[in-house]
Amino acid sequence: MRNLHLALIHHPVLNRNGRIISSAVTNLDLHDIARLARTYGVGSFFVVTPLEDQQQLVERLVGHWTRGAGGAYNPDRKQALEKITVRATLAEVVDDLMGAGGSASDLLTVATSARCHDRSISCDRLRQIIGENRSCLLLFGTAWGLADSLLGQADAILAPIRANGTYNHLSVRSAAAIILDRLARAE
Amino acid sequence: MRNLHLALIHHPVLNRNGRIISSAVTNLDLHDIARLARTYGVGSFFVVTPLEDQQQLVERLVGHWTRGAGGAYNPDRKQALEKITVRATLAEVVDDLMGAGGSASDLLTVATSARCHDRSISCDRLRQIIGENRSCLLLFGTAWGLADSLLGQADAILAPIRANGTYNHLSVRSAAAIILDRLARAE
Repeated sequence: MRNLHLALIHHPVLNRNGRIISSAVTNLDLHDIARLARTYGVGSFFVVTPLEDQQQLVERLVGHWTRGAGGAYNPDRKQALEKITVRATLAEVVDDLMGAGGSASDLLTVATSARCHDRSISCDRLRQIIGENRSCLLLFGTAWGLADSLLGQADAILAPIRANGTYNHLSVRSAAAIILDRLARAE
Repeated sequence: MRNLHLALIHHPVLNRNGRIISSAVTNLDLHDIARLARTYGVGSFFVVTPLEDQQQLVERLVGHWTRGAGGAYNPDRKQALEKITVRATLAEVVDDLMGAGGSASDLLTVATSARCHDRSISCDRLRQIIGENRSCLLLFGTAWGLADSLLGQADAILAPIRANGTYNHLSVRSAAAIILDRLARAE
């Protein structure tokens, strides 16, 4: 799944009251999703935050595991954290991926959400698109999920993990694990 | 999957040098796996640690979300954390589940591992067994995984998530997410 890329969005996301916020970076989000990205052979994993101190925090953390003492202590973790790139905005991520060989219209951005939306596509359909070698960027929201403005910007929205369940409150770490496993599944 | 139960084991598990240790409880393990347990309708989620201070820590944390201020702040989290029961040993968990209506021979204990073992069973096979309504207890190891003594005690060992990949270093949170989703999958 080299043509699949992940972005963990810290702004604009919602708080529990539905207000738009910039969330703080959670250390274990980075570790868990980087390890998933490495396990499933994903192209890249972008951590997106406009807050400079948070960007620096992520850079320092990634540096510890990729160039510092952490890499010697745990080489497996080094391989995972090397997947991480910090960017301020989604637009910067899209620029990066277009620069890496694609054109804007080639890149399919797919938002994830715990709710159903009109423009939902299934995991099966997205797996098919990835199989056709098109570049895809999956957007994951932190806090209470991606803001509507960001859902509106995406080319498509992935159907929620438990569309028919009455309870659908997974961590972004769990959602990323389940979605990557579903996308990698042999049909 | 009411007849499927989860146990997160903190002893005996391995450290990175293969020594047997008691690992410390990780807050996000409890939240993530409890939310998974609630989402997928699992029967119960046991947190197993022989360390009394760690047992008290888990009780306090669960109490905050189920009886304290956390439950009012976030009722969804309350529903998830209510799944948690703290026990000192695997034997206590098995006693609990047998007391809940089964006999010892009815309960199938299935260990999880990142490595291949002779007694591996596939997710497909385990899904079948759960579908036949047999009580199953899935064991997840913290730190560097379950000790051999515990793998030996289990009735079966679940095949690793990426048996054919070269990199298989997922967090226990991610592994639990992927395995539950695979077990719940309609065939």
